[in-house]
Amino acid sequence: MEEKFIIKEEFIKQAQEISRGAELLPGGVNELAIKLQKSAESKKPIRVKLGMDPTRPDLHLGHTVVMKKLKKFQELGHTIVLLVGGATAMVGDPSGKSETRPALSKEQVEENAKTYFEQMSKVLDTSKAEVVNNADWLHPMQLTDLLKLASNVTVAQMMTRDDFAKRYAEGKPISIHEFFYPLMQAYDSVAIDADIELGGTDQRFNVLLGREIQAAYGKPNPQMVMLLPLIEGTDGLVKMSKTYPEHCISLTDSAKDMYGKLMSIPDTLIIKYFSLLTDISDDELKDIEARLKVENPRDIKMKLAFTITREYHGEQDAVSAQNDFINVVQNKGIPDDIPSFKYTDALNIVDLLVELGFVASKGEAKRLIAGGGVKIDNVKVTDPSLVVPADGSAKVLQAGKRKFVELING
Amino acid sequence: MEEKFIIKEEFIKQAQEISRGAELLPGGVNELAIKLQKSAESKKPIRVKLGMDPTRPDLHLGHTVVMKKLKKFQELGHTIVLLVGGATAMVGDPSGKSETRPALSKEQVEENAKTYFEQMSKVLDTSKAEVVNNADWLHPMQLTDLLKLASNVTVAQMMTRDDFAKRYAEGKPISIHEFFYPLMQAYDSVAIDADIELGGTDQRFNVLLGREIQAAYGKPNPQMVMLLPLIEGTDGLVKMSKTYPEHCISLTDSAKDMYGKLMSIPDTLIIKYFSLLTDISDDELKDIEARLKVENPRDIKMKLAFTITREYHGEQDAVSAQNDFINVVQNKGIPDDIPSFKYTDALNIVDLLVELGFVASKGEAKRLIAGGGVKIDNVKVTDPSLVVPADGSAKVLQAGKRKFVELING
Repeated sequence: MEEKFIIKEEFIKQAQEISRGAELLPGGVNELAIKLQKSAESKKPIRVKLGMDPTRPDLHLGHTVVMKKLKKFQELGHTIVLLVGGATAMVGDPSGKSETRPALSKEQVEENAKTYFEQMSKVLDTSKAEVVNNADWLHPMQLTDLLKLASNVTVAQMMTRDDFAKRYAEGKPISIHEFFYPLMQAYDSVAIDADIELGGTDQRFNVLLGREIQAAYGKPNPQMVMLLPLIEGTDGLVKMSKTYPEHCISLTDSAKDMYGKLMSIPDTLIIKYFSLLTDISDDELKDIEARLKVENPRDIKMKLAFTITREYHGEQDAVSAQNDFINVVQNKGIPDDIPSFKYTDALNIVDLLVELGFVASKGEAKRLIAGGGVKIDNVKVTDPSLVVPADGSAKVLQAGKRKFVELING
Repeated sequence: MEEKFIIKEEFIKQAQEISRGAELLPGGVNELAIKLQKSAESKKPIRVKLGMDPTRPDLHLGHTVVMKKLKKFQELGHTIVLLVGGATAMVGDPSGKSETRPALSKEQVEENAKTYFEQMSKVLDTSKAEVVNNADWLHPMQLTDLLKLASNVTVAQMMTRDDFAKRYAEGKPISIHEFFYPLMQAYDSVAIDADIELGGTDQRFNVLLGREIQAAYGKPNPQMVMLLPLIEGTDGLVKMSKTYPEHCISLTDSAKDMYGKLMSIPDTLIIKYFSLLTDISDDELKDIEARLKVENPRDIKMKLAFTITREYHGEQDAVSAQNDFINVVQNKGIPDDIPSFKYTDALNIVDLLVELGFVASKGEAKRLIAGGGVKIDNVKVTDPSLVVPADGSAKVLQAGKRKFVELING
């Protein structure tokens, strides 16, 4: 007879907190609570897997969603296993882009992984994490091992993966070797004996396959999976990605840029950002949700921008970024501390904008002017052929909301 | 400018003779003629690949179709490469049966291969052939090698293989590892540098893939393929196979059985059998076709049965088998030399048939009687409860066309 297992309230609460905003499969919060409780009782930490794609080492706030979860597990004493996909990166990935990703050399993989960890350490303690590279167990695999692995999955099953199904339906080629990417990723879970794997919702197929392959290889309690939502960029429309740098908040953005970009998100994203990108408690989150109904969303957003900016740049820079923002955007004023530009002869406004690096091209300068984004001493410039005089009459040039320069003639 | 290559009549004729009844792809007879001519001019023998499935070592006449072709290449001085599918047999094959074949051990593979060669040597000179086992190059392959191999084929392409397409459409599972069977077989052509591969028409996809993979690995003149028709069993309906032993002519069948079975084929198969199972020349074949229109097909079939039986059992046994056949079937007589059975007490006919081993069960005995297939002294037995008397009155018992016993009471 099976022993009746009673889940303690404490672990259900833990599981709920850890999984805020995430999807737990297949057993939901209770499965995670059981794992947490059993781990506590046996004093055997849960092994939490995160696969890292070393082909894209530039981290942005979107990546911190999963890192926040790892941090929570780490704070509870569990083991974070950071898996560098060395073998897979050296193969190329059939990603959602429906294109085969170029293969990387071993050196590139190692270099990228290093950069990745440096950025990650802003959120969690990477020194306590187990770092492994799947090239260590995947590269030595031989025919028989690989066929054994592949025999556990059918073509029909593989074709349920969204991007494969889509490409197959569209008549776009899927190379046979691409089927091995999810298989290898799944086998990683066997190799590192993962108890839970974290991944974006776009990884649903792969991480669930990890559970299945673990079971096929005899693991009694195969991994559960935690799927994290993909977070939208500052436009609130598409997922945050380096592909749209203007809507992407990079971990290496300056405090001022980070704060300013966070202030530009639509109000509808405020709660999602708070929930997934900050460490505030569930109670605080509820409080914010309540306040949002009665207060000016701008004030709540300022709290969000300040909280996140402080986390990555410290209190002082966050305060400074906030003051700047208040001054520039809210009071339409000019920041306290702006760079200066010395010149002697009169200059065309378009050439000047390019020279200052405020725009990347003359075309962009003209478009900015046409859009009313360029001001001299708070007066909009409307004519791209305007010549900035060399008589000291023009004092402050503004491009967009946050770029200023003091013009010094002489 | 490309040099103009003039194919000599001699090599076209050679190519036509070798490929009698077969399909040559992709370039037809001319492509083979060019290979033959270039080989003769360069004194570099053509490398002819035949993959052997060591899971089914019992050879029958169906297998000799391809062996006859190999023999012709051998007679012209070319190199026969007999490939034992050790690696593939140890994996299992997604055959046309839509079922995964059980994997064999290394020892079973070697034992089967040995048996295979012994039987093959009845047709060609196996001592002159190159014998290789693909386990030698496939087993050491690692992840990167296998992914490189797999990257040359798309899922859509693989799904054009008849049995895969059928199974997929029927919702029957295809394991991912099964995709590797044709890939491995194709890679064998790279490893042995084949110029032409022979196979049954059911191997069309696999052998053509060999050509493609060779090209992907840089072979300037990748292999052409010769597809041999599958030969029907003696019922003329389904392909000859051990699955239907009553319609299958095994190389280990006695001269009498071989001759008798050959005489039982439908007239429509006579030319196909002559063309693919004997060494008669094209001129002789034309002559036989002409005679078949005016003579009794039975006489032509006797020539066929004699020719094939002589090949595997020698002149003397073939003559004896032929005489027996004439005596038993044509003259409804009893063969000269039949075994005897001594008994003392009266016996039920059904029990007797079972005891003699003429039938496998009482049920079969009853069916044989009901079908009029049992005779005592040339009189049909109709009653399964008949008791064969112990008074010496019953002398010869006949079951079916070719089983006889002399009953000796005492």
